[in-house]
Amino acid sequence: MSAEDLRNRPIGIFDSGVGGLTVASEVMRLLPGEHIVYFGDVGRSPYGGRSKETIIAFTRQDINFLLEHNVKYIIAACNSASAAALETVMKEYDIDMLGVIEPGARAAVGYTRNNRVGIIGTKATIASDAYAEAIQRRNSQVKVFSLACPLFVPLVEEGYIEKEATSMIARDYLKTLIDVDIDTLVLGCTHYPLLKAVIGKVMSEAVCLVDSAEETAREVAAVLSLKNMLRPSGDNATRKFYVSDVPDWFSQVAHQFMGRNISSITRVDITRY
Amino acid sequence: MSAEDLRNRPIGIFDSGVGGLTVASEVMRLLPGEHIVYFGDVGRSPYGGRSKETIIAFTRQDINFLLEHNVKYIIAACNSASAAALETVMKEYDIDMLGVIEPGARAAVGYTRNNRVGIIGTKATIASDAYAEAIQRRNSQVKVFSLACPLFVPLVEEGYIEKEATSMIARDYLKTLIDVDIDTLVLGCTHYPLLKAVIGKVMSEAVCLVDSAEETAREVAAVLSLKNMLRPSGDNATRKFYVSDVPDWFSQVAHQFMGRNISSITRVDITRY
Repeated sequence: MSAEDLRNRPIGIFDSGVGGLTVASEVMRLLPGEHIVYFGDVGRSPYGGRSKETIIAFTRQDINFLLEHNVKYIIAACNSASAAALETVMKEYDIDMLGVIEPGARAAVGYTRNNRVGIIGTKATIASDAYAEAIQRRNSQVKVFSLACPLFVPLVEEGYIEKEATSMIARDYLKTLIDVDIDTLVLGCTHYPLLKAVIGKVMSEAVCLVDSAEETAREVAAVLSLKNMLRPSGDNATRKFYVSDVPDWFSQVAHQFMGRNISSITRVDITRY
Repeated sequence: MSAEDLRNRPIGIFDSGVGGLTVASEVMRLLPGEHIVYFGDVGRSPYGGRSKETIIAFTRQDINFLLEHNVKYIIAACNSASAAALETVMKEYDIDMLGVIEPGARAAVGYTRNNRVGIIGTKATIASDAYAEAIQRRNSQVKVFSLACPLFVPLVEEGYIEKEATSMIARDYLKTLIDVDIDTLVLGCTHYPLLKAVIGKVMSEAVCLVDSAEETAREVAAVLSLKNMLRPSGDNATRKFYVSDVPDWFSQVAHQFMGRNISSITRVDITRY
């Protein structure tokens, strides 16, 4: 295959549902010329709470589906898959992959000045300890404070972004992190960037918020550029969206995440992959 | 089989997750002598939002699993399964079954004086229109006002029962139902009985709250009594709990729903059924 053929192939992104759309959105913003194939496994969402072997099996199927679309690069825009499966499945495939945890961890280590970093995420992500481990692999001096905020995902999906109840819940959750004097907070869930303003108001202005979606997109842009894999022509980029159950709900929530409507969403039977 | 053998067999209860525990809890309260087998399909939860054919396929597997435990009666303690699958699958099996929608609808028709009934539930339950149809089949004079309250389930599962944020969200949601002068409100989701106090405070005292879990348990007690299927001896009733993924989370939330710890929870591969 010629280098140009490779560059023209789409970037594949998968998530257990809609959360990965924040990553897709950032990729589209930074790399507007890239074709994108997105798979949201809404029929089996959420992955968190499932066993490691189940998440690995699901991740393989998600990757197999994307490979059928001839992708040149794969983003696991899902914290559960990144934490539980990526290390294992990466070795099984001959294609570059990136999860959302490494870029978030790398950024946190870079931003912190007082070596005190907070991580917020779903129960499953926090229980996995994946961010804390990734941060301490880079700098064992950094003290990590982890906190699960399980209501943030449903609040975002319900559009409860600028409501007083959401601020109240955020104050309630984040209290413990304020008390321990962190200077950097990782939004370790792909839904959380939509609550950045609320979280920013609750935390002191001096606390740097690390947006995993943004950091991941930036790293993808850097890697593709370095490897000369960026699509040469910026026009006519196609974005294709696939889901594993009825697309109605995905379509409604997608608008919230992308700030735009998604015209075509196709349903696939992911268990065939 | 003798009549006594039949009476000694357990009652089977299934749900897509933990919500059905409110039904199980009521059954245990009303019928303390009955053996119970509970299956919570936490690995494929929630059913709402899935296609009708998927819910039917899952429901068949849940029933097949319970039948293996030699149950004498089956309760579909899941609104999505009751709405989308029960009518179809009931015809395929030679065992009595009851869903949560019919008892709730029956009670609402009985309680209302002004023929104005509100229904609250998950998005999927409300979209199915199952309660409205069941009510109007019984009394076409009754006007039904339906409202989805998607945040109530995560709030309950997160233990946000007596928090101001929950009251605030409840006031926000229920405003439209207050405006239309209902005198009866059906809690059309098995999680909602835990929010009965909050919902009761928001609605006027004159509004009768119909608890589907309670109504269902009462109907089961009546049916089993009528058919002479109640277990004769009240002592040594066993309660067995099965789930379709790692039981940790189920075990934590179960305490909230049951007001007691569940000692043994067994994981099963439901896809084999």
